[in-house]
Amino acid sequence: MTSRKGSLMGVRDDIKVLDATIRDGGLCNNFEFTDEFVTELYKINIKCGVDYMEFGYKASKNMFRESDFGKWKFCNEDHIRAIVGDNISDMKIAVMADVGRCDFKTDFLPKSESVIDMVRVACYIHQIPAAIEMIEYLHNLGYETTCNIMAISQANLDQVEQALEMITASSVDVMYLVDSFGSLYPENASELAKIYLTAAEKTGKKVGFHAHNNQNLAFANTIETMSYGVSYLDATAQGMGRGAGNCPMELLLGFLKNPKYNLYNLLLFIENYMLPLKEQGVSWGYDLQYMFTGQLNCHPREAIDFTAKKRTDYSEFYKYLLENY
Amino acid sequence: MTSRKGSLMGVRDDIKVLDATIRDGGLCNNFEFTDEFVTELYKINIKCGVDYMEFGYKASKNMFRESDFGKWKFCNEDHIRAIVGDNISDMKIAVMADVGRCDFKTDFLPKSESVIDMVRVACYIHQIPAAIEMIEYLHNLGYETTCNIMAISQANLDQVEQALEMITASSVDVMYLVDSFGSLYPENASELAKIYLTAAEKTGKKVGFHAHNNQNLAFANTIETMSYGVSYLDATAQGMGRGAGNCPMELLLGFLKNPKYNLYNLLLFIENYMLPLKEQGVSWGYDLQYMFTGQLNCHPREAIDFTAKKRTDYSEFYKYLLENY
Repeated sequence: MTSRKGSLMGVRDDIKVLDATIRDGGLCNNFEFTDEFVTELYKINIKCGVDYMEFGYKASKNMFRESDFGKWKFCNEDHIRAIVGDNISDMKIAVMADVGRCDFKTDFLPKSESVIDMVRVACYIHQIPAAIEMIEYLHNLGYETTCNIMAISQANLDQVEQALEMITASSVDVMYLVDSFGSLYPENASELAKIYLTAAEKTGKKVGFHAHNNQNLAFANTIETMSYGVSYLDATAQGMGRGAGNCPMELLLGFLKNPKYNLYNLLLFIENYMLPLKEQGVSWGYDLQYMFTGQLNCHPREAIDFTAKKRTDYSEFYKYLLENY
Repeated sequence: MTSRKGSLMGVRDDIKVLDATIRDGGLCNNFEFTDEFVTELYKINIKCGVDYMEFGYKASKNMFRESDFGKWKFCNEDHIRAIVGDNISDMKIAVMADVGRCDFKTDFLPKSESVIDMVRVACYIHQIPAAIEMIEYLHNLGYETTCNIMAISQANLDQVEQALEMITASSVDVMYLVDSFGSLYPENASELAKIYLTAAEKTGKKVGFHAHNNQNLAFANTIETMSYGVSYLDATAQGMGRGAGNCPMELLLGFLKNPKYNLYNLLLFIENYMLPLKEQGVSWGYDLQYMFTGQLNCHPREAIDFTAKKRTDYSEFYKYLLENY
């Protein structure tokens, strides 16, 4: 279990790359992407060999008003189909549903009627039973499912082991290690991954990794955990995602040796669609305020606020965090 | 040799942090730092617990005109003393001298007359005999010495092993692994580090790591190689250094658990001195053009030119590199 799988030179056929730009990136712009942006990203992802594209959340319309957000917070079937038609491609379509913040019993069609392939169930470690209820329901509808346990850097090892015992007994296909706070280092991310992988291998499940870049380690943690057997890898164009963002897709595609993955097309998308987003003031990416919350293993919400206010008094903010976390 | 040394929770007393801001950062602004900047950095480094501060190069005045560069390309004794006096601190003073681009037989005083503690001899792997000649000369003058083998990602394993055999037989104190092109991943950086460490441990020498951030891996590679026993760690304020820059000191100080290292004071320096540098247009740091040269394992000179021209046609530049490297 502790050895590296494959080599830096070769191809690992078990690898699946998931583009989460619209979903995690949507947290930076209230999910207000133009249809043109999403359509182009869909086409580019196919050209780049991306295996899954996540379109957004299936958020509860009882809890969140549709008029307050872009459409990708809700991922209505007809909105996805307006982009992908029947998705005549090898790339699969994913959406995310948060435990306690979705209406999964009413908002999902049977898979046979939906263009969605995979539902990623996001939860905190104290919500595993609720996650499993959702997973079984969605699995029975015919979807691939994942269980994305967020903020794993705050869980203790006992909790992780119990959670994995419960999840591996479920119908879930993929168990995700989610470093929500960007607090893990390659060394402890790999140790956690090995625990997931040991549980997964016994039960025929796969393991995924979702990184945040608070300490500039999103790409490093992704390829390090991958080297021990993690196979579902989340990334986003230019790392677009909440706060410090995620693993940049361009770094990941440039690293993977499978010739199905192609970097060039993504560069065209970055030039034509990502640079304008940044120019419009949509903000994400590594900076000191996110480094602090990563180092302190806490939620980035105050760092996001610091960024929004265009503050640069880093030392004051750091002092504040030290006193309050 | 393959096991991790120490843990993420503990202190490794063998660790030495070296600030290379003026030296590698000087490559971004022609070494034209104000005396105030260098004086403040010197004071802040002492407060932060930094072990060595590198002031710049000892470049040949026959090859380079003094009037063409800031003074830290030459590091005259009196210029250093104007900042540090007799350096009444626990922090040591380092300078770098490039093989073939310095006049080491005329430009170094005996250590007893100099405020410099350590000379870092930088060379390519085909220059080891010349490096050793310099090391022996400088060692005999009384200096600590390092051998910094640059562009190690382009050397083959036979060359590395022969080079290490030659260097370990010399009087050098520290052998540095230098990822000049930011091309190494944590996995192969660690494998290389283990080869250095095996050679070093037999002969009582230490191993250092100098990272570049082309693939956003400078910090990751620094702490990963450290975890296997590398003990001399180069970093710079905000990662300031040629092209994509180096390992950011703030990430490293925030990571190290030894209470002698202090992050807060560095934040004050960043606010007061580094942010203004960036505002003046001094440029460094991770971007796609540097990622390409890192992925292709080539010198960043064309990426630096791309940056200087404020180009954003990444896809064209990538195509050009693919055709020419």
